[in-house]
Amino acid sequence: MAAVAYLREPFDPGLHEALRRRLGDRLTTSAAICERHGQDESYHQPHAPDAVAFAQSTEEVADIVKLCARYKAPIIPFGTGTSLEGHVAALKGGVCIDVSQMNRVLRVGAEDLDVTVEAGVTRKQLNEYLRDTGLFFPIDPGADASLGGMAATRASGTNAVRYGTMRENVLSLTVVLADGRVIRTARRARKSAAGYDLTRLFVGSEGTLGVITELTLRLYGIPEAISAAVCAFPTIEAAVDTVILTIQSGVPVARIELLDDTQIDAINKYSKLDNKVAPTLFFEFHGTKAGVAEQVAIVKEIAGERGGSDFRWATTQEERNKLWQARHDAYYAALALRPGSQGWATDVCVPISRLAECIAETKRDLAQSPIPSALVGHVGDGNFHLVFMIDPKQPAEIAEASRLNERMVTRALAMEGTCTGEHGVGYGKMDFLPAEHGEAVEVMRMLKRALDPENLMNPGKIVRL
Amino acid sequence: MAAVAYLREPFDPGLHEALRRRLGDRLTTSAAICERHGQDESYHQPHAPDAVAFAQSTEEVADIVKLCARYKAPIIPFGTGTSLEGHVAALKGGVCIDVSQMNRVLRVGAEDLDVTVEAGVTRKQLNEYLRDTGLFFPIDPGADASLGGMAATRASGTNAVRYGTMRENVLSLTVVLADGRVIRTARRARKSAAGYDLTRLFVGSEGTLGVITELTLRLYGIPEAISAAVCAFPTIEAAVDTVILTIQSGVPVARIELLDDTQIDAINKYSKLDNKVAPTLFFEFHGTKAGVAEQVAIVKEIAGERGGSDFRWATTQEERNKLWQARHDAYYAALALRPGSQGWATDVCVPISRLAECIAETKRDLAQSPIPSALVGHVGDGNFHLVFMIDPKQPAEIAEASRLNERMVTRALAMEGTCTGEHGVGYGKMDFLPAEHGEAVEVMRMLKRALDPENLMNPGKIVRL
Repeated sequence: MAAVAYLREPFDPGLHEALRRRLGDRLTTSAAICERHGQDESYHQPHAPDAVAFAQSTEEVADIVKLCARYKAPIIPFGTGTSLEGHVAALKGGVCIDVSQMNRVLRVGAEDLDVTVEAGVTRKQLNEYLRDTGLFFPIDPGADASLGGMAATRASGTNAVRYGTMRENVLSLTVVLADGRVIRTARRARKSAAGYDLTRLFVGSEGTLGVITELTLRLYGIPEAISAAVCAFPTIEAAVDTVILTIQSGVPVARIELLDDTQIDAINKYSKLDNKVAPTLFFEFHGTKAGVAEQVAIVKEIAGERGGSDFRWATTQEERNKLWQARHDAYYAALALRPGSQGWATDVCVPISRLAECIAETKRDLAQSPIPSALVGHVGDGNFHLVFMIDPKQPAEIAEASRLNERMVTRALAMEGTCTGEHGVGYGKMDFLPAEHGEAVEVMRMLKRALDPENLMNPGKIVRL
Repeated sequence: MAAVAYLREPFDPGLHEALRRRLGDRLTTSAAICERHGQDESYHQPHAPDAVAFAQSTEEVADIVKLCARYKAPIIPFGTGTSLEGHVAALKGGVCIDVSQMNRVLRVGAEDLDVTVEAGVTRKQLNEYLRDTGLFFPIDPGADASLGGMAATRASGTNAVRYGTMRENVLSLTVVLADGRVIRTARRARKSAAGYDLTRLFVGSEGTLGVITELTLRLYGIPEAISAAVCAFPTIEAAVDTVILTIQSGVPVARIELLDDTQIDAINKYSKLDNKVAPTLFFEFHGTKAGVAEQVAIVKEIAGERGGSDFRWATTQEERNKLWQARHDAYYAALALRPGSQGWATDVCVPISRLAECIAETKRDLAQSPIPSALVGHVGDGNFHLVFMIDPKQPAEIAEASRLNERMVTRALAMEGTCTGEHGVGYGKMDFLPAEHGEAVEVMRMLKRALDPENLMNPGKIVRL
């Protein structure tokens, strides 16, 4: 993608001084820190903010937003910077609000299976905190992202096929609006018909409508029995057909992940494993002992009929952790296949009836391209990812990745799918939204203008105004 | 509640003529038909629209909305008129758009476990249509409501504890906006991170942001095994404790419904049953045969420890239908306890850890009141309902029901609950929204003004402007 020039106003010294007065050392304009905050884990061109504010409370975030609003400076929320479509890029400069110091678990409601956290708590930190309660939070994007960022990007991960995404697992949010007012989007009841669904409005809004500062999340009991297994297939079609049949048969599989042969090779090398280099499914089953045994029996039969090799089981917690850590490291493993390369990651999601076709056509494209790439997917949801290992100094490679990405998105849209299942829009996928949503993009614009009339909240993301 | 006078403009003869030209006989100003369309199943004062338009397609709805927008006439969508908070009352007159003739199932995606329907299809009609597919749609409010209306009010019902509410089960909507433009809120992918969640914005918006004309819904495979049972308890606390323990233990119970002694007496008489007159739980378990047996064993143990009597099983489809029909008829059964009475129905939802306390305090209020009432609840969600059997000619009874309702809502809010778990806001619960949502009500107003600047879409509902 060619570098795009964005207009940015100079950073107002009055705002700088006011923020310094409020935050002291926790306001910085250090070039190194600003640069780090303008870049996520994607191939997108970084854009450093003018300043980074390390907030420690909702009240501080509100004060920062109010000051920025007064000086009409853009505001970019920042959790761990692990987004994949340029979400944190300060396209028009302004102030990055880093919430990583807001990392307290505020309450655990073991009886209600819920928890309230500050936005900077990461998913691993939360599960570590919950370790002795018998409860866990299932949403697991590859990175150890902040929960605020995960809500903002409507993240999901490997468990979504069973437990849903952030859309289903956020009960309530505390949000600082564009004018600094603080709202709570809902109470703690499991369901409510009391007015517009503000929770879901902010989940997936990528910081463009407000800054998420606290979250109340659903928790789940750790199942009595957990089994994980790896199964290699003769072809990618056989693996995908196994997924489709499993979902259609109603087996409540907890995880069902596809890795193509390139990706298996990559994780073997990166994580020192010895999986057969072939299209492979990673499974996990949750339930009672008998329930898991039933699920396994059904899935083994489906896989066996499609040439799936014997299941290799990871039975101890340690073996399972190793298996899933390898899966979560897939992105880094793919990059390590081509030393010095940068990752160009993209994802789409289609109705499951079209998944085999969508993956097959995409693989054909990839086979004809000189750029190395790997395919992994949360295929139980119809969602899959590509990572291109590109040399960022070669414009031809960037152009080729861009072309392949566009072909895949166009294909997914033609199959009634979406241009992104879980990475989000950022500024990387904005131009696909009109094709996906048509006139509905105008409704998104109406919402953006209503809640952020000055266009200060993470400007230049999701919709063009 | 005292009768409130609403300002209404006279019906414009130009609009009348234009609508007649477009719809012919399917536009009526018949007083009887208008009156029926201004009244739902609640105690709320009816308000007839000036005209009723029977639409047959999305395009017709769009044309009607455009004409109403041109003449600045209010628009009230209407499905089956079974709402419970005055949702269909034409407070400011205008045109009721009745979608009951839009009752086609447009496609069944058996492979993707989804279906697309017109807004007038009712839940029973859909399940009848699906009968031979092995699939079903689980959301079941008491009435045989239209699916458009169910989405508009974010309905749920007895299966929500396992399958979620309309919030979780609508994949995509076709919506006519206030200016007559038609949008589709999402594609058919199971998950998406492509922009603001317009689907969830319209689910629960009660016709105040647009008219829902088509829906794509999730379907589920009919489980291999289904068992339903009835279990009586010595006290309501023992029954509620059984619910709480069941949910906390992670049993994936499909239905768990509480009926108090009055309600059991009512359904015994109304549906000619012989249940023991005592606080009672109705259960249903879905799964494989072994899975259901496991669930039953756990729940029986929990119930037994709390004095639950033997489970009375409904094993055949016919027995189960009878059991659940009785549950669905609870409202009508309660009214039949006091011939000539009118129902005043209300619901709240609280975190499950507070459910026993909330029900106990509410029952104490009811015991001290002269008005007969019955309590039923989707208690697995923390949601319960009251119906007062009032004589609508007695203002003192209306005032007393209103007082009890307000006490219950205030109690639920103090327990971090919501003023309505599933009935919605309509114009009956508008005044509780500021107490529940605080400053967030202003965000709801911003959304309403952005999408409906002339306040023509079901005006006077959800938020006061």
